[in-house]
Amino acid sequence: MADAPDTEQRLRALEERVALLEDQLALYRLVSTYGPAVDTGGGKEAAELWAEDGAYEFDTSRLDGPEGIAAMVAGETHQGLIHQGCAHVLALPVLTVDGDEAHATGYSRVYRHVGDGYEVWRVSANHWRFRRTPDGWRVTHRVNRTLDGSPEARAILRRAFGESTRETP
Amino acid sequence: MADAPDTEQRLRALEERVALLEDQLALYRLVSTYGPAVDTGGGKEAAELWAEDGAYEFDTSRLDGPEGIAAMVAGETHQGLIHQGCAHVLALPVLTVDGDEAHATGYSRVYRHVGDGYEVWRVSANHWRFRRTPDGWRVTHRVNRTLDGSPEARAILRRAFGESTRETP
Amino acid sequence: MADAPDTEQRLRALEERVALLEDQLALYRLVSTYGPAVDTGGGKEAAELWAEDGAYEFDTSRLDGPEGIAAMVAGETHQGLIHQGCAHVLALPVLTVDGDEAHATGYSRVYRHVGDGYEVWRVSANHWRFRRTPDGWRVTHRVNRTLDGSPEARAILRRAFGESTRETP
Repeated sequence: MADAPDTEQRLRALEERVALLEDQLALYRLVSTYGPAVDTGGGKEAAELWAEDGAYEFDTSRLDGPEGIAAMVAGETHQGLIHQGCAHVLALPVLTVDGDEAHATGYSRVYRHVGDGYEVWRVSANHWRFRRTPDGWRVTHRVNRTLDGSPEARAILRRAFGESTRETP
Repeated sequence: MADAPDTEQRLRALEERVALLEDQLALYRLVSTYGPAVDTGGGKEAAELWAEDGAYEFDTSRLDGPEGIAAMVAGETHQGLIHQGCAHVLALPVLTVDGDEAHATGYSRVYRHVGDGYEVWRVSANHWRFRRTPDGWRVTHRVNRTLDGSPEARAILRRAFGESTRETP
Repeated sequence: MADAPDTEQRLRALEERVALLEDQLALYRLVSTYGPAVDTGGGKEAAELWAEDGAYEFDTSRLDGPEGIAAMVAGETHQGLIHQGCAHVLALPVLTVDGDEAHATGYSRVYRHVGDGYEVWRVSANHWRFRRTPDGWRVTHRVNRTLDGSPEARAILRRAFGESTRETP
């Protein structure tokens, strides 16, 4: 037994590994909560995913903080989409947790009800940054660009590889 | 060391946290098994996901128990879909485990092979309830409504927020 | 306390369970990394997902090893797709880990930018085999067939049920 790590070390190692797994599942959950929040018009629920100083950039827009998110959900464009029938579906992202920060890269799609079926209105590249807060993980920055062949959208997906979570947004 | 929780307490806490993580991954797996079951005509495999007293409600239909699920898969409509080419794809749901019960809210899409490509035939809101059984987690209730702008579909997605697993189906 | 498993046994059991959870999340990550790799033209990043002796079969093609993957990404067809705008989106697969091998079954979709929106160009059944290597999990075999109503595609999805990871590819 001389070389075996002692019980205290093993417990500590397990506690850290379990905490990391919990963080990963919490972040999967956060990302998959975005759709149900915005597709129900839940401005409050969508806003609560963001940190106070968080931002969401898409196309040429930038939303600041939970208030910006809530205002987007309450806006005419978004409400029109909801009443037509829509689904904002996030795919499983490539996730990296680094202590109290984390980032994720992945796809989102917006399906829109048209006639008897659905059209795929938007397919986008997304990069998310998160921060651990006393209330759980929150989004500090999300950027979304439609995959329309532009290098900007591809640059977002590239962040799945070797991205530092500390890079300036 | 006087204030440190003792080994027994730490082991117990870890055992509980690990069991919860295992439950979450088991439920992700259950939800992602539905598609391969029904798209292969695997009525038995689809049926086995449901509890004996489980149900599946969609549109104006209600299927009761594993037998109801198996009959749907064997039915003419579903078999036609399979032979045309289809995919029932479940997105990562928002999952909550509460002891021996659990529930999940999320999207499903049915893609249908048409011509040289695919159409998005259905995009739906889903709410699932699960129960832990001696054979593993089983579905006790699933409800699915297409996101066609109706308040009913949005009400299903709302269950991602503050839903009690003990609410009557 | 006479019947309680001792601390050493409980630590060992926890270490094994945590390692299995880590494997599952590592494999989710591997599968969800494929899209960002190929959609950015990251031939190197895509190639690195495969084992040296790994293969990727789709339609009537077979790509051998990391070199084969990188060549596909660099090819004219794939580059055309990227510059038009595309997204290779993998759904959460049904995953089974068996020691140093693992396999997964699930859906992939290729969305293609056309006009102002997107078409669903391919919806496929996928079966993946993985091997644990000193550098982490790697793909040893992936097969992909479009779900066009053919029995071959359904046979791939069937592997979600009772598949042995040791079966010959």
